[in-house]
Amino acid sequence: MFLDENFLLTNEWAQKLFHSYANSEPIIDYHCHLEPNVIFENKQYDNLTKIWLNDNGLGDHYKWRLMRANGVEEALITGDGDDYQKFIAFVKTLEKAPGNPIYEWSHLEMRRYFGIDLIINQENAANIWALANQKLQTNAYRPKELLEMMQVKVVCTTDDPADTLEYHEALAKENNSFKVLPTFRPDNAWMIEMPDYADYIERLGKSAGIEVNTFTDLLRVLSARVAYFHEKGARLADQGLNSYRYQAATPAALDLLFARALAGETDFSEGELAQFSTAVQLHLMKTYQAHGWTMQMHLNALRNGSSKLKREVGINVGGDSMGVQTNLASHVVQLFSEAEERDVLPKVIVYSLNPTDWLPLATAMQSFQGGIVQKLQLGCAWWFNDTYDGMKEQLKIMASQSLLANFTGMLTDSRSFLSYPRHEYFRRILCQLFGEWVEEGRLPEDEAYLGQIIKSICYGNASSYFGFFD
Amino acid sequence: MFLDENFLLTNEWAQKLFHSYANSEPIIDYHCHLEPNVIFENKQYDNLTKIWLNDNGLGDHYKWRLMRANGVEEALITGDGDDYQKFIAFVKTLEKAPGNPIYEWSHLEMRRYFGIDLIINQENAANIWALANQKLQTNAYRPKELLEMMQVKVVCTTDDPADTLEYHEALAKENNSFKVLPTFRPDNAWMIEMPDYADYIERLGKSAGIEVNTFTDLLRVLSARVAYFHEKGARLADQGLNSYRYQAATPAALDLLFARALAGETDFSEGELAQFSTAVQLHLMKTYQAHGWTMQMHLNALRNGSSKLKREVGINVGGDSMGVQTNLASHVVQLFSEAEERDVLPKVIVYSLNPTDWLPLATAMQSFQGGIVQKLQLGCAWWFNDTYDGMKEQLKIMASQSLLANFTGMLTDSRSFLSYPRHEYFRRILCQLFGEWVEEGRLPEDEAYLGQIIKSICYGNASSYFGFFD
Amino acid sequence: MFLDENFLLTNEWAQKLFHSYANSEPIIDYHCHLEPNVIFENKQYDNLTKIWLNDNGLGDHYKWRLMRANGVEEALITGDGDDYQKFIAFVKTLEKAPGNPIYEWSHLEMRRYFGIDLIINQENAANIWALANQKLQTNAYRPKELLEMMQVKVVCTTDDPADTLEYHEALAKENNSFKVLPTFRPDNAWMIEMPDYADYIERLGKSAGIEVNTFTDLLRVLSARVAYFHEKGARLADQGLNSYRYQAATPAALDLLFARALAGETDFSEGELAQFSTAVQLHLMKTYQAHGWTMQMHLNALRNGSSKLKREVGINVGGDSMGVQTNLASHVVQLFSEAEERDVLPKVIVYSLNPTDWLPLATAMQSFQGGIVQKLQLGCAWWFNDTYDGMKEQLKIMASQSLLANFTGMLTDSRSFLSYPRHEYFRRILCQLFGEWVEEGRLPEDEAYLGQIIKSICYGNASSYFGFFD
Repeated sequence: MFLDENFLLTNEWAQKLFHSYANSEPIIDYHCHLEPNVIFENKQYDNLTKIWLNDNGLGDHYKWRLMRANGVEEALITGDGDDYQKFIAFVKTLEKAPGNPIYEWSHLEMRRYFGIDLIINQENAANIWALANQKLQTNAYRPKELLEMMQVKVVCTTDDPADTLEYHEALAKENNSFKVLPTFRPDNAWMIEMPDYADYIERLGKSAGIEVNTFTDLLRVLSARVAYFHEKGARLADQGLNSYRYQAATPAALDLLFARALAGETDFSEGELAQFSTAVQLHLMKTYQAHGWTMQMHLNALRNGSSKLKREVGINVGGDSMGVQTNLASHVVQLFSEAEERDVLPKVIVYSLNPTDWLPLATAMQSFQGGIVQKLQLGCAWWFNDTYDGMKEQLKIMASQSLLANFTGMLTDSRSFLSYPRHEYFRRILCQLFGEWVEEGRLPEDEAYLGQIIKSICYGNASSYFGFFD
Repeated sequence: MFLDENFLLTNEWAQKLFHSYANSEPIIDYHCHLEPNVIFENKQYDNLTKIWLNDNGLGDHYKWRLMRANGVEEALITGDGDDYQKFIAFVKTLEKAPGNPIYEWSHLEMRRYFGIDLIINQENAANIWALANQKLQTNAYRPKELLEMMQVKVVCTTDDPADTLEYHEALAKENNSFKVLPTFRPDNAWMIEMPDYADYIERLGKSAGIEVNTFTDLLRVLSARVAYFHEKGARLADQGLNSYRYQAATPAALDLLFARALAGETDFSEGELAQFSTAVQLHLMKTYQAHGWTMQMHLNALRNGSSKLKREVGINVGGDSMGVQTNLASHVVQLFSEAEERDVLPKVIVYSLNPTDWLPLATAMQSFQGGIVQKLQLGCAWWFNDTYDGMKEQLKIMASQSLLANFTGMLTDSRSFLSYPRHEYFRRILCQLFGEWVEEGRLPEDEAYLGQIIKSICYGNASSYFGFFD
Repeated sequence: MFLDENFLLTNEWAQKLFHSYANSEPIIDYHCHLEPNVIFENKQYDNLTKIWLNDNGLGDHYKWRLMRANGVEEALITGDGDDYQKFIAFVKTLEKAPGNPIYEWSHLEMRRYFGIDLIINQENAANIWALANQKLQTNAYRPKELLEMMQVKVVCTTDDPADTLEYHEALAKENNSFKVLPTFRPDNAWMIEMPDYADYIERLGKSAGIEVNTFTDLLRVLSARVAYFHEKGARLADQGLNSYRYQAATPAALDLLFARALAGETDFSEGELAQFSTAVQLHLMKTYQAHGWTMQMHLNALRNGSSKLKREVGINVGGDSMGVQTNLASHVVQLFSEAEERDVLPKVIVYSLNPTDWLPLATAMQSFQGGIVQKLQLGCAWWFNDTYDGMKEQLKIMASQSLLANFTGMLTDSRSFLSYPRHEYFRRILCQLFGEWVEEGRLPEDEAYLGQIIKSICYGNASSYFGFFD
């Protein structure tokens, strides 16, 4: 039955593993895009549209893309349309979305947070709107309470090295049932082709009280900011590499590139960009390794495909898609090999938005393992792959090419406080997969053994691997 | 049981949806390679080989490829061998083809058209030959009657802009239970590297009564032909882009390229070909959009791999394979972005022969949606992907990345009047997939809701999206 | 139940086909890396670690990679650690490997060779160690007896053209229940970029008693060695093409390239390497075809990704991964087309380590079929793809794009005498797939017909296609 207790669990072992082991584990959301100030301020949302779809242009762009596909005009998506009309436009869209994870997630969100188990359709829309809005007026539906409701223990936000982390500091002083930790996302540091690069570097320098004039200064300030983030509880970094090419460079060449960038130049060759990025990656890897951090790499995204959408609505609004740099694995291999030679290879989680990279990357990482349990691992299914089939495929690849029992599991990557049922979705798929393997005779019917692995993937591995509680 | 009423339908909901909703819907075949003159002349076929395998070198090259794989000599495939021997060679081949869609389709063709439910093997061959040939002597087995037998309502053929469409005109005057409409397939207009390009342009100009001397003339004559096709009922175009690179060009550069091509030059750089093609695509998109047409793009085919087969047997005889231009999505994104900026993006269906393109393309298209219900969509599994797994994969990707309920569904892409059971095959997979989703708890058990979606994908969406009956 | 008689067989037809048809067929291992001298000498192994994990640095690098992923230090993998500690480190690793084929294979190896059906875990480790070691002391657990135990009829080793084949000769004189045949692996002949190329060519020349000074000499000596290998029973060649680009060259250009290589030069352009390789491939294809051989092509491997691992441990120790040359199919097509024009295309089996190549390659090969039953075929799932999902995917692609009933089936590609249960694993997947097709109504319930196909894929096709017993 639709979304009942055995949702996605079609065999007995899957059900046993989910209900007895997975379901009650708390959540570590080690990568998301929640805003620390919104958590701190613990904002009250006016209505379901605001918290679920769009709050002054911020919201769940997964849903926006679907609405556009149903022909909805932008005014009712990110624009200044009426909130109820926006909600109705989304409901009509959802009716067209069988087999889409948003269909299932949206229903789970209504059920798990609001206890509303109505089918989301035009007939029930008014009712859902009224019921949800009633609850949103209560204190139980503010960000902190929503995190607590979902048993979230750690939230890792995504932060620029120049950020002050003041809200993380403020939150740390509170007595919450969860930690909100920063994640070091230094993409701006190597994107010398950006017109505002020099301004950014100035801001970055100021954040550390360091004047940045040379490439060596840049490395120094980055190290300082990693140390600062570490002090504030950060244990992960996150490199957003839409594309990546390995290329070595001399110190002199790097100095010159940096000088040109500070002088406002933006016209660099592909090779020059590769050189600069590679040098920064290697320095950061060394710094992360020294702090025992884990480096995440988010690869192969094609950003802002529609120049019109970007200009009229902005970035991160649903205009991105899968990248097609198919030789990524060979460049990542070169980066890891060099890092290994320098003895600076940290723990690494690699995500690619294009699933054809997963097998090459998963096999490539195995060439650099050793010394630490699961030093490198394939990241969970990311973004457009966050589907039933995508998650299952990622688990199968991690299982077949490495050690699934060491996997640190799911994260939300979300901008919404209502996204935590994605963890439940992931856990059901995980248990279903194990159940299938037991049914096929590929795993022993040893409940204690299997249950322990399931619990580890849901929570324990992330807890010990990242060291949030050390 | 083999091909019984629940063929491919392994759960109750799949069976219910197929038998109560999908099976009785009529067919819109919005892309195929049937010849309008053959339909008009309503030819009688001598025997099963002629209508099923090879009629003077024309026929079903899917089957020819399999025969070659079984070591059959060309004389018994496309050559002047005896028709019965050809049939026997095919039967022997089919015995080796478990798991191949041709195995299942061939049996369905015998059953649905001829009522012959014998297993196709050497033991039954003589019997099948006799039974089928007896029926082929009757008027019920001529093209028009076969289309009617299968409840086909629309057939879209594939036609060159220079074609007169005289048979479409003649068919339109008849009182048939189906429409035969032209599709605008303008590939020849941008292939300046072809030795006979100048001759083609002359022929194209004559078809519109326009003298074509400049690039502007070319655009003008193409617009004129789109208008002519529209008058004759065309609502779709089809661009066969074996490979595609986006590249902008100045009007002067395009004029010069066109002049060189008209002068007989064939040696153009990849960049020049990309410039010319891109300019023609953008003009055509504008024209299609103005007429409310849908543009189909058929991408990533590697044509005529065997130069020997091409020379000795010809083109479109089974010598093509999947292309490997893996960066296609990034070029398509640039084309769509430019078209959107010019406000000339029409409805688009994108097919790629290489299924690794599907996810990048499906996600890329989502960046350009809006204003029209399902303005862009991923085309159904094409050619070599027209398999159980290929069709299911395409449906899952359309579902997970966009709105499956808006999908316009199946087409045959066929050269044979006996191919219509491919629609049944598709519909069974569609219903099976929905049934699986219901069983997993991913869709509500709401028969009216699901049945309506199934019917729309089988027929209703194509009918309304393309506007054949407006 | 775990690994019981119906392991992997979840429906009745799968069980019937496996138990009545597949299971009792003997084995032809037409590609592996067993050492002929080790077979001839019929070495006794000291303990389970030696035969199963690591024998003085030689052994099963599939297992090594997993151990490294669990953080095991190299001393307990390939180093001089204690054998029992190595075993324990592997056992601990295996506990983390649910869903990994190594998990299932390792258990099968204990069961099928040693009759030990204990779960491999820390609790049972001492027991397993004692039981296995006891058996290893007996004559029944030496290489020849192990091959006989598994009903192996043919083992094709992998040999350099310069090899003397003395152990093959010696084995041929014995009265074994199996043949050990050489395979011609000529990669060294075209790798002009290798620093020891000139030395190699001298050694190669000496093996045939031919002085090699020119490119023509090289071709002559290769032909001579093919003839020699043929005499010693070889019926297959194996080209290890980590990457491949087709490029034509004049005889003069090839002479010059060869002269430069003999003079010790190693700095060739990508185009020059492609020219040289292409010319050698075409000559070898002609030679193979003349002897009725089958050419295997192993494509798209990224070798020695970690320079540290290569330097410290060596090659073929677990440092390779999937290649990402995504345009391979287009170059293979050009090679086959040229070979076909010269009438020198032999039987070919193409393997790629990157499964995204499989569909393009499988469809490409179909363009060159004819004259011989299944002249070209997609090789079975190779190396990292040797998983439940990888094998099933390969079978589905071979089925959907060509004639699965002609497939020559499984090989081990192994360096271990304990790997033969991989054939059982493959056969179970094969029968499961056929069983699924019957259940879905895609195959007739004709036991004699299906059973015969299963037997052919397990043994008969390899026997007749390669002609080992002609």
